[in-house]
Amino acid sequence: MAPDVARTRMLAAATPLQGAEAMPLVQASGRTLAEDVTALRTQPPFAASAMDGYAVRAADLTSLMPLHVIGEAKAGHPFGGTVGPMEAVRIFTGAPVPDGADAILIQENAQGVGAGVITPTQTEQAGRFVRPAGLDFCTGDCLLKAGTVLDAWHIGLAASMGHGLLSVRSRPRVAILSTGDELAMPGSALREGQIVSSNAFALAAFVESRGGVADDRGIVPDDADTTRRAIANAAEGCDLIVTSGGASVGDHDFVQAALVANGFSISFWKIAVRPGKPLMFGVRGSTLCLGLPGNPVSSMICAILFLEPLLRKLLGQPNPDTDRSEGALLGRALPANDLREEYMRASLGRDDAGNLVATPFSSQDSSIQRLMASADALLIRPAHAPAAEAGTPCRIIRL
Amino acid sequence: MAPDVARTRMLAAATPLQGAEAMPLVQASGRTLAEDVTALRTQPPFAASAMDGYAVRAADLTSLMPLHVIGEAKAGHPFGGTVGPMEAVRIFTGAPVPDGADAILIQENAQGVGAGVITPTQTEQAGRFVRPAGLDFCTGDCLLKAGTVLDAWHIGLAASMGHGLLSVRSRPRVAILSTGDELAMPGSALREGQIVSSNAFALAAFVESRGGVADDRGIVPDDADTTRRAIANAAEGCDLIVTSGGASVGDHDFVQAALVANGFSISFWKIAVRPGKPLMFGVRGSTLCLGLPGNPVSSMICAILFLEPLLRKLLGQPNPDTDRSEGALLGRALPANDLREEYMRASLGRDDAGNLVATPFSSQDSSIQRLMASADALLIRPAHAPAAEAGTPCRIIRL
Repeated sequence: MAPDVARTRMLAAATPLQGAEAMPLVQASGRTLAEDVTALRTQPPFAASAMDGYAVRAADLTSLMPLHVIGEAKAGHPFGGTVGPMEAVRIFTGAPVPDGADAILIQENAQGVGAGVITPTQTEQAGRFVRPAGLDFCTGDCLLKAGTVLDAWHIGLAASMGHGLLSVRSRPRVAILSTGDELAMPGSALREGQIVSSNAFALAAFVESRGGVADDRGIVPDDADTTRRAIANAAEGCDLIVTSGGASVGDHDFVQAALVANGFSISFWKIAVRPGKPLMFGVRGSTLCLGLPGNPVSSMICAILFLEPLLRKLLGQPNPDTDRSEGALLGRALPANDLREEYMRASLGRDDAGNLVATPFSSQDSSIQRLMASADALLIRPAHAPAAEAGTPCRIIRL
Repeated sequence: MAPDVARTRMLAAATPLQGAEAMPLVQASGRTLAEDVTALRTQPPFAASAMDGYAVRAADLTSLMPLHVIGEAKAGHPFGGTVGPMEAVRIFTGAPVPDGADAILIQENAQGVGAGVITPTQTEQAGRFVRPAGLDFCTGDCLLKAGTVLDAWHIGLAASMGHGLLSVRSRPRVAILSTGDELAMPGSALREGQIVSSNAFALAAFVESRGGVADDRGIVPDDADTTRRAIANAAEGCDLIVTSGGASVGDHDFVQAALVANGFSISFWKIAVRPGKPLMFGVRGSTLCLGLPGNPVSSMICAILFLEPLLRKLLGQPNPDTDRSEGALLGRALPANDLREEYMRASLGRDDAGNLVATPFSSQDSSIQRLMASADALLIRPAHAPAAEAGTPCRIIRL
């Protein structure tokens, strides 16, 4: 099955979580908005000066005759009176434009400053250097939509809108299970034939950086009863179980049976992707299970292709299936591809013309974590892609 | 002064923080490595099978005669004996290849399975489907360099290398001061002429998302004594003070004097950038101060241009001044630019050929936060750039 078909089916079976929590602005950064946010106030709340200078009546400038300075307006300190004919008020950026005035004469265009009188050296149109009330937004304007992942600019805008708290989606709780008798924790003594468990750490970091809460449930040995109990325990209190390994069709893979025994309905897809291949997806009510390959590189690539969109969907982000790929030029020739879409670990650079160039590493062995960690991007080779020369346009996903 | 000249001077005055802390793997994600990390073990630690099948002596396959199956090797459960002539061991992916065997016959190429005897249907070269010990890395290999910002793949690799903790740089402590009598906290009642303080929230979110710890010191009124005391307090226990507003040459700007009174040596640059203009940088021993404009959009753009590289330098990340811009095509015609480099808020799209197209918003008023929050990118217009038609190559910084 093509990976995009499997992804579409997976996403169709998932629904956004309904939980939300109110967070102070800065802590809300990086979280996903649970509801539309409308302005509680108008910005600017008054006509404000955009420059340091003098608030004047534009009509009074035409004669370039002296104006009488009757007061001062600073940011936070309005001038209380009204500007009459041939009068001016000293004004600073951000201060309210006083009643009667309709333009700002910038200080560079005023002579004789300091004697209570200024002489304009230039005329201005009415409205010049005045920011009208509501130029940015008005009370009731909806400026941030539910599903937005909040960044620093959104936080600043929400503050200006008058919000001190924002309602953000609860983070999906993701239980991570690593399966395999060969796994040992980093730092522990390895028995013969064992390797260090690494996928759970990478997957937990991946989940946390993409808005979820990771709950590492440790290593599950290759045993039917233990696996069944581990799935039963993990399914309580989490939104998504992610398993690493134990999902292929080998003789010693117990995850699928354990899911069925726990009442999950299972979709099992041999996806036409390299590295990757077996992918499992299970549903029991609102609890989901994504079964990833045990090979570390395959696990990470399938996390990008499937776990990330699934988290986006659970968080209520728009278009969870958005194509994140972008264009580049191939840095070296590649042979024709077979029927499996390939995700090649590649470095990124620029050619002399400034074009992005993606050069796949010469080794694409999916057991080599070192190359995954040093890759800048995944280069996508579509199924059945013909042989391609260096310089051919290609698609990449930045890492 | 050109912004890149100011940035180079600022970075020359900053030195990486020396503090580090040991963090568990998942919590180390997103942090900056304080030292090089070398492998504590060899991966894979033994020659391992890359497939499900039979461990054999490649030379025995040439006759395609039956082989006697003498045992089994599973991941984590090695076969203890030695494979002799015309013998085979049932083996699964990830299991150690037994002594005597030098190739894997994949199960699809074995007939008569189950009767203790298999018949190969194909020959293989020695080494086929065997991952030799150390294929990924060997004990002592340095695979992660100091200064690396750790992502999920780095975390997975560090686990495989045998590390349970990683030494990461302490996060720079950043005190944030907002200056201005016109500012009020979101949610508070506004006096006439006041506006809501928003920069501190945006800057705090910015600092936290880029590896710092933000300490919001609140609003400082336009008063010389209060500003001096606020700077004195902020300078204790922080690595960097960021001020918002109060740094221009207006009559009511007290920050520069307060810094001087507190023993900071000051560089004040009128940078040729729009929006932006005044930028202040101060140094007192190891404590730095970056003075940003008070205008919210200018503040955010200067944060991207100056605060982000400064945090990278303090965190010891390589090449803090790296150009983050990338190429795109202009989405609409633009007039010639003046002497100030301009950062225009723009939306991103694709043309029919798949090229990235950046279309600047028609309003570039730097007081409009709404447009900053909805922009996908900043389009860079170099100083003195000539008028440009739609479709002209340009540079952008993604937001």
